[in-house]
Amino acid sequence: MKRLGYLGPPGTFGEEAALLYGPADERVPFLSHTAVIQAVRDGVVDQGIAAIENSLDGAVNETIDILLAADNLSICAEFVLSIDQNLIAAPGTTLEDIDVVISHPSALAQCRGFLESHLPRARLEAALSTARAVEEAVRAPNSAAIGTRRAAEISGGVLLAEAVQDVRQNKTRFVVVSPHDAAPTGDDKTSIAFAVAHDRPGTLIGALKELSDRSINLTHIESRPSREQLGIYVFLIDFDGHRQERAAGEALAAIRAQSNFFRILGSYPRFKEVGS
Amino acid sequence: MKRLGYLGPPGTFGEEAALLYGPADERVPFLSHTAVIQAVRDGVVDQGIAAIENSLDGAVNETIDILLAADNLSICAEFVLSIDQNLIAAPGTTLEDIDVVISHPSALAQCRGFLESHLPRARLEAALSTARAVEEAVRAPNSAAIGTRRAAEISGGVLLAEAVQDVRQNKTRFVVVSPHDAAPTGDDKTSIAFAVAHDRPGTLIGALKELSDRSINLTHIESRPSREQLGIYVFLIDFDGHRQERAAGEALAAIRAQSNFFRILGSYPRFKEVGS
Repeated sequence: MKRLGYLGPPGTFGEEAALLYGPADERVPFLSHTAVIQAVRDGVVDQGIAAIENSLDGAVNETIDILLAADNLSICAEFVLSIDQNLIAAPGTTLEDIDVVISHPSALAQCRGFLESHLPRARLEAALSTARAVEEAVRAPNSAAIGTRRAAEISGGVLLAEAVQDVRQNKTRFVVVSPHDAAPTGDDKTSIAFAVAHDRPGTLIGALKELSDRSINLTHIESRPSREQLGIYVFLIDFDGHRQERAAGEALAAIRAQSNFFRILGSYPRFKEVGS
Repeated sequence: MKRLGYLGPPGTFGEEAALLYGPADERVPFLSHTAVIQAVRDGVVDQGIAAIENSLDGAVNETIDILLAADNLSICAEFVLSIDQNLIAAPGTTLEDIDVVISHPSALAQCRGFLESHLPRARLEAALSTARAVEEAVRAPNSAAIGTRRAAEISGGVLLAEAVQDVRQNKTRFVVVSPHDAAPTGDDKTSIAFAVAHDRPGTLIGALKELSDRSINLTHIESRPSREQLGIYVFLIDFDGHRQERAAGEALAAIRAQSNFFRILGSYPRFKEVGS
C-alpha cells in the first residue's frame, strides 16, 4: 500500500521516525533529505519523512529549501520525536571494559558531558553514522557506540546507559511530505512561505494582522534571506487551522494578495505529544 | 592584548572565522560553542566567536540557548564566512591516486555530488573533525580529505579541488561574544530576545509596530519555544540601529514594557560583505 522514504541508514533517527509514523509496506532509506523529497516527487516512494527543526545533522535548512522549491509537494503530517542517544555495546560488556567509543562526531559532541564523567579514558572514534557505529561496536571487543535504541535492536547490542545526551530534552520535529496535504480534522496546522519586497516590519505586520484579525494563533515564525534575490526575505509561518476552513482561507487569500511570492506548504493534523 | 576563543581544533571553520575577525594575541580552541561562551563569562578569554546561523554542526540552537542564558555577555560584532570545502591531499597526489576520502560525516554529506561524479569508487571514512581528516589524509598514501584551506596550510597538504560542496553559496553567520557590546558607528544592528505570554500574532504585532512606527528595518525574526515554560514563545529579532540611538532606544523600551522576558543581546556594527 505505502512506500515511505526516510534519511537512512536503518538504525538512525530517520528510521525511528519512519517506524513512529505508522504502518508502511516498505520503508526506503535515502542518503539525504533532498534525496527523500526528490523520491516523493519522482513517485519512487509515496511519502517521505524529513527533519525540519532541531535535528542532529542540521537538516532544517536543507529540508526547508527543497520544500520551498517543490511546488507540487505538500506537508501532510508532522510529529515530534525525542532524540535520545544511548551507550550501546555487545552483550556482557560493562563500562569498565570500554576503551573506545564510536559514533557520528555530532552524536559524540552531544554526549560530551556523559563521556567525560563516565568514560574519561576512552578514545573517541568517528563513524559515518550512528547506525554504522553501533554495528562496529557490537562486533569489536572493548568498544561501545553512541546510537539509537533501534540500532541496538538491529545489531543485537545492549544499552549500557540510556539518554546519555547532555541536553535531556532533545526533540526533533519531522514533517511527512506527499503529493497532497491532509483533509481537515478540526485540529490542524497550516504552514506557508511568502516573500515581500522589503524587510520592513510594516510589511510583515500586514500579513500577521490578517491572522490576528481572525483570532488565528501563530505557532512559528522565521525569516530567511532568499538565495536567489538579494534583499528579498522569505517568511515561514505556521498557524492553527486548515486552509479549507473559512477564517484560515480568507487570511491566506489576503496574505497572498500582499506577497511577491506565496506558497502554502500544507495543512495537516496538529501533532499531540503523549503526556502533554 | 586580546585572547579570542573559537570552536576548534585549529584548521576548522572556527579557526578560519577567528583569523578573519582580526588581530589577537592568542586564539584559543574549545570543544564546543558552549565552552567558548563559558570561557568568555569566566574571563579565560576576552572574546569568543560562535556560529549562529547555518553552520556545519547545527550550532545555531546551542549558541542561541547559551546566549539567552548568559545575562552578562553581549554580541559585539557579527560577520559572515563563506564555508568552502576543498579536496586536500599530500603534494604530488592526483585524483586518480585516491582510494579513500576522509572527513567529518557532515562535510562528506555536503560534498556528495562532487564525490559521486569525480571519485565514484573511493571509500568514505569518518573523522572527528575536518581538521583531523586533513592531517590523516596528508600522511596516508592514496587518500584525500574534505576540509578547509587553513587545514591544508597547517598540514602541508595541497588543494586538489576547491569549493567542492554541492551548494555553492554556503555561508555561516558568526557572532563575537564579549562582556560588552560595541559603541555606535552609524551603521549598526541590534539583536534582542523577548517572550510574550501567548503565541497570538497580536502580541508579536505590538512589538513589531514599535519598530515600524519608527521606520526601523527588521533584518531577522525567529520564534522558538522556550525550554523552561511550556506555551511561552521566545522571539529573536535583529533590526537596523544601535540601542543608544534615540529611535531604537524608544522602541526597545516600548517592547520591554510589553514583554514577560526581555533581553538586549547587543548592538554591533553591521557586517558588510566584500563585493556586495
